[in-house]
Amino acid sequence: MKNFEELSRAFIAYFNRSHFPEKPASLYQPAEYFLNLGGKRIRPVMCLMGNELFDEIHPNCWDIATAIELFHNFTLIHDDIMDKAPLRRGMPTLHEKFGQSNALLAGDVMLVAAYDSLNKISFPVIQKLIYLFNKTAKEVCEGQQMDMDYEKSGHVRLKEYLYMIELKTSVLLGASLKMGAIIGGAGEGNQDHLYAFGLNLGLAFQIQDDYLDAFGDPAKFGKQPGGDIVVNKQTFLFIKAMETGSKSQIKEMNELMHSEAPDKVDKMIRIFKDCGVDQQAHLLKEEYLAKAISHLENIAVLSNRKDPLMQLAKFLIQRES
Amino acid sequence: MKNFEELSRAFIAYFNRSHFPEKPASLYQPAEYFLNLGGKRIRPVMCLMGNELFDEIHPNCWDIATAIELFHNFTLIHDDIMDKAPLRRGMPTLHEKFGQSNALLAGDVMLVAAYDSLNKISFPVIQKLIYLFNKTAKEVCEGQQMDMDYEKSGHVRLKEYLYMIELKTSVLLGASLKMGAIIGGAGEGNQDHLYAFGLNLGLAFQIQDDYLDAFGDPAKFGKQPGGDIVVNKQTFLFIKAMETGSKSQIKEMNELMHSEAPDKVDKMIRIFKDCGVDQQAHLLKEEYLAKAISHLENIAVLSNRKDPLMQLAKFLIQRES
Repeated sequence: MKNFEELSRAFIAYFNRSHFPEKPASLYQPAEYFLNLGGKRIRPVMCLMGNELFDEIHPNCWDIATAIELFHNFTLIHDDIMDKAPLRRGMPTLHEKFGQSNALLAGDVMLVAAYDSLNKISFPVIQKLIYLFNKTAKEVCEGQQMDMDYEKSGHVRLKEYLYMIELKTSVLLGASLKMGAIIGGAGEGNQDHLYAFGLNLGLAFQIQDDYLDAFGDPAKFGKQPGGDIVVNKQTFLFIKAMETGSKSQIKEMNELMHSEAPDKVDKMIRIFKDCGVDQQAHLLKEEYLAKAISHLENIAVLSNRKDPLMQLAKFLIQRES
Repeated sequence: MKNFEELSRAFIAYFNRSHFPEKPASLYQPAEYFLNLGGKRIRPVMCLMGNELFDEIHPNCWDIATAIELFHNFTLIHDDIMDKAPLRRGMPTLHEKFGQSNALLAGDVMLVAAYDSLNKISFPVIQKLIYLFNKTAKEVCEGQQMDMDYEKSGHVRLKEYLYMIELKTSVLLGASLKMGAIIGGAGEGNQDHLYAFGLNLGLAFQIQDDYLDAFGDPAKFGKQPGGDIVVNKQTFLFIKAMETGSKSQIKEMNELMHSEAPDKVDKMIRIFKDCGVDQQAHLLKEEYLAKAISHLENIAVLSNRKDPLMQLAKFLIQRES
């Protein structure tokens, strides 16, 4: 069995090749460019880990992991278009560099390539895998749509927000693990616990992400706090503060939303603290993490096989906060 | 066995249902809207015909036909975004009506839905079908990319143009027939002849389309001639005239490209006639049609089983011109 870093290195080495033909270059060069931007490749590594939890890694698992990473990159390319994002991993996004139409089409062809990779799996597993892959893909689209809808909407309820982040980011983590478990021959109960581990870990990660944007240590976090506040993003902190704040706090938050004053971030962070939503974010993150770990504990395999997944949880969720 | 109209009616009745869940409505309502714009559903009907050429229609063939139609609509939605098209079948395009991001995402989810439909097919046919489907999908993306590249490029060679229309429109016709043949248990030789029938029929249709834009009878064609000329589209007529015209004709065509004079269309049509490219278009169309029919004749089934496909060829290719 391999630990998280070993699997990560192995996948990066495996994935580091050209995935498309050379011509037409105007279609496939943008696609290769985007894959070469790198990334932590967490989802395909989770797929390999989900497999190795139950058995030696099945040769087909590398194809499934590849499909997952191609799918993830397809969503990033199209999300960047929809969000008009200028940068991805510090480099120009695809539509910035190659134009919107080329980026759109490169995303499309990357999704098809993901299915090409899935189509290498033998019967009968292929149909189970495509079913889960499609279900997840539709949920990720739904999550992205809700995210866009909420950007335009004045009032997002916490329940809606949590459901949105579940669809937009967490289901793919659960599905990546579960697809590995399926090819690893896991029973359905174990598959479901593993999926729930990934789902709850994803939610914990997202809440942590919201927390760190306002309260992260700039030295560790690598950027100035308050990016979400500047663009008026509806995060856990904002939504919870709107739900629990006093009338005057809500009034001030609404005013800050329309302000471009230099102290906007400081003032918003002050309200978050006064409302105690920093502590509530911490508690909710811990709650999701505990749920995730409880599902991991419920998987019926020798507990030392679970070490790499515990290590992953610790890698994703920092406990010092 | 059913003829073209009967199969067409049967598929339209089968396909006329909701294909997506209700929520989130902002994602799925645009998708349903687009499917409800209608269309002749030629590709799925070709899939059914390809099946019935060899056997009674397999129940799974309806799922394949559905996947093909969903895929085709996905390409139309994304093409409309790339082409900034305001209208589709006389109605507002998806991005015009619902905004670009919603249209992009509705297209994405429609492609996933196509794979959902394919995933209903039993082993071992499913892997052959997905292989052909993916190959075709990538070719259609390549064709769309080339089309966009050629729009910006001054000089497109005839050979390049013919390859582009083969990828952009013809391969899907060939693949639709062949997917039906695969589920109908056809041998590989028969599958290949049927594919070539569809491919050549598609090429004949596209050349006819180029011809009719300039020389079609407005009364029959339903629109004023010269739409392609107005937008400087590189069609067979234009490319061939640029390749075979005299120096002075080429000079005049280049000038007309930059002109918005009211007699631009008339002048360009006059050059087309002087160069004889109307006759050449007619000849090339007939050549492709003859090739298509020769492949149809080479399929080893009783010849009366081929009647609906001959009928289809006559429906698509008008002989009066």
